[in-house]
Amino acid sequence: MLGIDFGGTKVALAVAPAGAMEAPSASAPRAVPGSALEVTRLETRGAEGAAEVVRRTVAACRSLLASRAGELVAVGVSTFGIVRDDVVRLAPNVPGWEGLPLPGLLREEFGGTPVFVANDVKAATAAELRWGNLAGVRDGIYLNLGTGLAAGLVVDGRVARGAHGAAGEIAYLARHADDLRIPRHNGVTAHAQEGPEPAAARAHLEEYVSGVALAERGTELLGSPVTAAQLFDRGDEPRVRTLLEDALDALGLAVANLCVALDPSRVVVGGGMMGAASLIMPRLREAVRQAVPYPPEVVPARFVDDAPLYGAIALALDGDTPTGQAVRPTM
Amino acid sequence: MLGIDFGGTKVALAVAPAGAMEAPSASAPRAVPGSALEVTRLETRGAEGAAEVVRRTVAACRSLLASRAGELVAVGVSTFGIVRDDVVRLAPNVPGWEGLPLPGLLREEFGGTPVFVANDVKAATAAELRWGNLAGVRDGIYLNLGTGLAAGLVVDGRVARGAHGAAGEIAYLARHADDLRIPRHNGVTAHAQEGPEPAAARAHLEEYVSGVALAERGTELLGSPVTAAQLFDRGDEPRVRTLLEDALDALGLAVANLCVALDPSRVVVGGGMMGAASLIMPRLREAVRQAVPYPPEVVPARFVDDAPLYGAIALALDGDTPTGQAVRPTM
Repeated sequence: MLGIDFGGTKVALAVAPAGAMEAPSASAPRAVPGSALEVTRLETRGAEGAAEVVRRTVAACRSLLASRAGELVAVGVSTFGIVRDDVVRLAPNVPGWEGLPLPGLLREEFGGTPVFVANDVKAATAAELRWGNLAGVRDGIYLNLGTGLAAGLVVDGRVARGAHGAAGEIAYLARHADDLRIPRHNGVTAHAQEGPEPAAARAHLEEYVSGVALAERGTELLGSPVTAAQLFDRGDEPRVRTLLEDALDALGLAVANLCVALDPSRVVVGGGMMGAASLIMPRLREAVRQAVPYPPEVVPARFVDDAPLYGAIALALDGDTPTGQAVRPTM
Repeated sequence: MLGIDFGGTKVALAVAPAGAMEAPSASAPRAVPGSALEVTRLETRGAEGAAEVVRRTVAACRSLLASRAGELVAVGVSTFGIVRDDVVRLAPNVPGWEGLPLPGLLREEFGGTPVFVANDVKAATAAELRWGNLAGVRDGIYLNLGTGLAAGLVVDGRVARGAHGAAGEIAYLARHADDLRIPRHNGVTAHAQEGPEPAAARAHLEEYVSGVALAERGTELLGSPVTAAQLFDRGDEPRVRTLLEDALDALGLAVANLCVALDPSRVVVGGGMMGAASLIMPRLREAVRQAVPYPPEVVPARFVDDAPLYGAIALALDGDTPTGQAVRPTM
């Protein structure tokens, strides 16, 4: 099994023996998945363009596979953006990625081997569902609080795709009715095979409370560059605390309402902002405790750094993809 | 097939021949379901208590069945509240209904016949999915705007249940972060077999924008009794318009965010408030058009008055129930 995780700054690769990655049994729901997973990383260098990123990634895969015995059974791939109709969408940050026919390109490269592609958060959800803190959960939510915001929705034991591969894209949640009067972007409209994509919706929640947003808002507040992590460290300063509490209010409201809508039994939280888990988790727990008829557990995710990479392996093992964009060889 | 719909003011019953109610074919996705469906209604008279309501309903069923030839194959049942662990929950308005083991009671009454129970909105969603305006939709939402507010979520072709049967209970959506600081109710805590239910969450959205809420808020505003329908009729008066626009803003925000989270291709809207569809539908369409990455269609539901009753028949035909509370005979 080969797993590939395309991230905004790094591409991670791993080869896993199929046997070491079995799904957990009911008696050992959190058995360690391939603890010996050997991870290779390369810089994404998105500025070089999508074609070049894919070329270098495939070369690294070939090099990695050449050093291993055995046959390549399946390839699982995680990417930022969403995957719709075999094309990556909602990925405006890496030149050439928006509109990239990634599944088809990789299918060509790997010949007769099945390739399964999903976006990073849906892949991470598949990893949590197979080996992590969503194992055994029929209805649950994986919440990724990172540079961006997104969720994976587990409904009836499966990762929900949505009609366009965009289920769980909570970055776009509006915070109040005024958000509905702000026009959509017109800049990143892409060319889909079946017609133009709609103008891009605003990522209202993500622009307010993600890692990137907190860094920007903190930098503006303090008058000097600050990261989200540094901002959380300075939470004792009244003006910083006000900013963070406001942001966590918005996040708590969004997560509580997501739980009202979906009625999960557990929410697992991962992503880079979990460095401030001691501040974030109590707020999320309190929000769901107040608002949700049957409040779910809110616990940290099992996978911290490599959730999408493990998820890519899970996709390959499942022989399915949450986006519905399974690419099977035609031979 | 026997269908029973327990409503707050009426109980509706219908017997349908299994053959007349076939699922639509792909070529005729909206074939009329049993247009000859004969409906019997009785008053709920909830004040008499749940046991008496069930007794009178069963008697009416027996009378109805006695006049028909053929064998009773299955019973489908729709009820207000939600159905959790074979017990009705979140139904504080009819004495004795909260905590009622309705599936078990009906199973005893109907002996060896399978009984399938779901709540009214999940049943209505099953009807729209089988015969109505969600036919052929893989990911969609049925939105019920009536005296109360609720939704049925169709994910991957099935009505989502949630971990406690409460998926889609959008009445409880919080409108802003301040709602998360309002304590839950303590009054209607019920006794579940596996332990006490949590204190009841507040139905923030429903208390603001449902048919009941609009009537109450309009009555307060105008100083004399007014129904929600009358309020919509008086939408030209500035103060009434302000109230309605504010309510429709809250509803539009909730529906748009539900669509962001679930990525449906279509939203179908039913319920008593659709008498004001000409005011409501454009607002909902505009809200999803602004906020949702891939805006779904927003169309009226097919079933107006008898959606849950048709849904009860659909449950019986499907041999399944969206709440997961299928009650099969043990014999």
